[in-house]
Amino acid sequence: MIRYQNLDQTKGFSQLKELAIPSVVEHFTKENLESQSIRAGADLTFNYAGKGINQALLSALQALADEQQVIDKYELLLSGEMMNTGEKRKVLHHLTRAQQAGEVLFHNENLRHFYQQQQKRFSDFANKVHTGEILGSTGKKITTVVQVGIGGSDLGPRALYLALQNLYLSKLEAKFISNVDPDDAAIIIDSCDLERTLFILVSKSGTTQETLANRNFVLEAAAKQQILNFIPNKHMVCVTSQTSPLAKDDSYLVSFFIDDFIGGRYSSTSAVGGVVLSLAFGSDVFDELLEGAADADAHARHRDIAQNAALMDALIGLYERNIKGYPSTAILPYSQALSRFPAHLQQLDMESNGKSVNRDAQLISYSTGPTIFGEPGTNGQHSFYQLLHQGTDIIPLQFIGFSRSQCAVDYDFEGSTSQTKLNANLAAQISAFVLGKSEPSNLNKNFAGGRPASLLYAPQLSARTLGALLAHYENKVMFQGFLWNLNSFDQEGVQLGKVLANEILSNKADATIMHLFGLLEG
Amino acid sequence: MIRYQNLDQTKGFSQLKELAIPSVVEHFTKENLESQSIRAGADLTFNYAGKGINQALLSALQALADEQQVIDKYELLLSGEMMNTGEKRKVLHHLTRAQQAGEVLFHNENLRHFYQQQQKRFSDFANKVHTGEILGSTGKKITTVVQVGIGGSDLGPRALYLALQNLYLSKLEAKFISNVDPDDAAIIIDSCDLERTLFILVSKSGTTQETLANRNFVLEAAAKQQILNFIPNKHMVCVTSQTSPLAKDDSYLVSFFIDDFIGGRYSSTSAVGGVVLSLAFGSDVFDELLEGAADADAHARHRDIAQNAALMDALIGLYERNIKGYPSTAILPYSQALSRFPAHLQQLDMESNGKSVNRDAQLISYSTGPTIFGEPGTNGQHSFYQLLHQGTDIIPLQFIGFSRSQCAVDYDFEGSTSQTKLNANLAAQISAFVLGKSEPSNLNKNFAGGRPASLLYAPQLSARTLGALLAHYENKVMFQGFLWNLNSFDQEGVQLGKVLANEILSNKADATIMHLFGLLEG
Repeated sequence: MIRYQNLDQTKGFSQLKELAIPSVVEHFTKENLESQSIRAGADLTFNYAGKGINQALLSALQALADEQQVIDKYELLLSGEMMNTGEKRKVLHHLTRAQQAGEVLFHNENLRHFYQQQQKRFSDFANKVHTGEILGSTGKKITTVVQVGIGGSDLGPRALYLALQNLYLSKLEAKFISNVDPDDAAIIIDSCDLERTLFILVSKSGTTQETLANRNFVLEAAAKQQILNFIPNKHMVCVTSQTSPLAKDDSYLVSFFIDDFIGGRYSSTSAVGGVVLSLAFGSDVFDELLEGAADADAHARHRDIAQNAALMDALIGLYERNIKGYPSTAILPYSQALSRFPAHLQQLDMESNGKSVNRDAQLISYSTGPTIFGEPGTNGQHSFYQLLHQGTDIIPLQFIGFSRSQCAVDYDFEGSTSQTKLNANLAAQISAFVLGKSEPSNLNKNFAGGRPASLLYAPQLSARTLGALLAHYENKVMFQGFLWNLNSFDQEGVQLGKVLANEILSNKADATIMHLFGLLEG
Repeated sequence: MIRYQNLDQTKGFSQLKELAIPSVVEHFTKENLESQSIRAGADLTFNYAGKGINQALLSALQALADEQQVIDKYELLLSGEMMNTGEKRKVLHHLTRAQQAGEVLFHNENLRHFYQQQQKRFSDFANKVHTGEILGSTGKKITTVVQVGIGGSDLGPRALYLALQNLYLSKLEAKFISNVDPDDAAIIIDSCDLERTLFILVSKSGTTQETLANRNFVLEAAAKQQILNFIPNKHMVCVTSQTSPLAKDDSYLVSFFIDDFIGGRYSSTSAVGGVVLSLAFGSDVFDELLEGAADADAHARHRDIAQNAALMDALIGLYERNIKGYPSTAILPYSQALSRFPAHLQQLDMESNGKSVNRDAQLISYSTGPTIFGEPGTNGQHSFYQLLHQGTDIIPLQFIGFSRSQCAVDYDFEGSTSQTKLNANLAAQISAFVLGKSEPSNLNKNFAGGRPASLLYAPQLSARTLGALLAHYENKVMFQGFLWNLNSFDQEGVQLGKVLANEILSNKADATIMHLFGLLEG
């Protein structure tokens, strides 16, 4: 029997609150670096020796996970239960990479087969574009693909594209238009040879204001160029749901489908990310990414938290949020290729768990999702790390690192390569945050330490590793939602702004709001 | 007589704590939208009608500003007083754009003249590159400039370059290498025609590990290409201090100088930003940026907070941090061109005021600099805004908007242009955050409101406006430092990591740290 109860109704949380808080400094030992380490899927490892976790805490976290039945809830989700309670929808992004549980049927359709079928369709399509079987409307080979989408249709696919473009030979260059700011579309379109460009229009509902405005922008800009025999719609494919207005428009080259059971921020492994990544790198690279994600999903089914990296990460995050009271978490990848990965995680986490009501829409009285931010190291070291080291608030840290670089171009300088310097800095920062350094004679140079830091690491940022990294965080966020008793799969908080924007555009908003708009319009 | 006292020693802070906290919702009126508006320099306006500020609070904030003598301290800083107490240095970034106060002499040198002289030198240099009087070492015209620097030598100049590249015809394309991750340099160098590329090496100390490694990387990669008659050092200019090891190396094409009185994160208007921006856009555009910054600096000298946007912004930030207890602040520019401006402000603010000791290195017991993060709107609306609207923590918001776009390419769709949609969204979001919308029958759709939001806006993001925007935030951060009694101009918190990284590289760190490094190295 599955129970849904708020965090503050659990015995586990009461017990957790009564435990002594272990020292972060004291638990950062060679022994814990060995033992507090969990395989996270593919070749990714999660190490939490810098988080100050002792045996009593581990037992309490395990008890809380058991009491909140997080693995049972994950299994239910995999089996097709309606876990998006607000919108009364299944949550099936795991099925886009592999079937972890039984078959999921909906109106007699096997949804795993549906996702696989779409994946096969866009793989074939990408292959045909690569071989030149599919050409632009004026007979030229496609060299550039532009994803037009916003939020989940942009941040995840963009972060993944940037993460892979050093390691894999690009078959096509990918670009992205997201913002309704006209400068975003104008600059990207201006940089493209339209006869050799394919646009991917991504909107599940087919009604996203920004994406429809940008579709129109592309069509108008193309028309203005007056290219002989150019048919703009034949340079556009759609990724949308079968019931959307876009799906009914057969003037596009082709449409690929998702459904309401794939939330935007969880959609990178569906056609939302798959079409652009398959076009950019080939479907074999996308397949590797899916394999990595599926492996992380499988690891996340362990009931033993010592074998479940995503769940351990989730529980430590809860401990830091609800017991230690820390309001933010920094994501610090030591890889320039992950430059936009923190922005994707910011959406994934803050949009999923930035909620004040539980899954039954009842008000809760404990803190939920933290503020997520981050930039790649070592860049951040020369920026906001000052506050992380010596600020008045403690901010828990999540480091990500790799043994090898992607480009395999490196040089020795003063006895070490750049990659070795990068990893020396990563290890140094974790140590500095955790251990600190006492300087009583000059407090300006004093480092209190005790800043908790975890590390996700792998030999190299490959497609497989990236898939596991992506799924690790998706599953972490899902587990935290179960622990907090939230619905992590809707986003009602984005609705009011949309309504008001439309009221302003139709001149129906109240006088104060119209006045503010008037100031802006000048 | 100037007094330096901690915030919690002031009468003003005690009085502030005793005031009733006004409702944010109730104060968001048409009248306040008119009256709670301050010119911020150039054509920039700061509006705080969404911040919930009433007359009693305004008086208390003015009293606190007066008691902490923030304007007197700003004047002292301008006059060349040693305001960077930890490092015993003057703080003279204002002098790079215009002399707001009297002459500043140091060892009989007039420092305003020194900065002006450097500015003239790099203006002339940029003009010669543009006219072709200066060519690459193999006789080809320079088309690309690559800034090699990290932290303050990267984030500000990069954000400003991106902010201006739509509006001004680029004379040269600019690129940036910052991270010690070898993939960062490898990808950028690979994308350059080295015979037509000029590298700008930026390090004040001339000892920055990442920048020296990347210099070496450029030289090695260039040597590998074996270009006939190519002299790598003749494709490199330096921006450094006159006493640095780099300045002693005359193998470079030319060196431009800054000094210890210009902190990295405040250096965008010095040669650190000036060389790359003058090369990219021409010195007239950089001059306009300086004019805008100087105008904001002049506005910041008003003692009356109702006429001093930067000081008002600083005081409201303090009120939100120390009275309301909010730990983060989001920066939300509704302009894709400002995509990296939040990353610059993240450094500016968090590195300046992320401190736990006062200017005399004594421990303080109140909160200082908040966590700063942000992404452009409308993108963020489809991402982390869910938490901003309905999360359990309140996060104060700073919006930035412009009436006109930069590219002047726009289309009507469903009755409005993209730019109008952008501004309708901006006005809608401020209203939604501040006013909320009650939905007692379904709390999942309930918006509590009361999320405080301010707005900086201007007709267009020009170089002049951008200069004012940059200086507004520099001055805001400086004023908060004075209010908190901090030294906002050093960054001791970045030192320990550097020391430990070097210990690791020379195999001298302790066993636990070396073990962690070993895990990473694989």
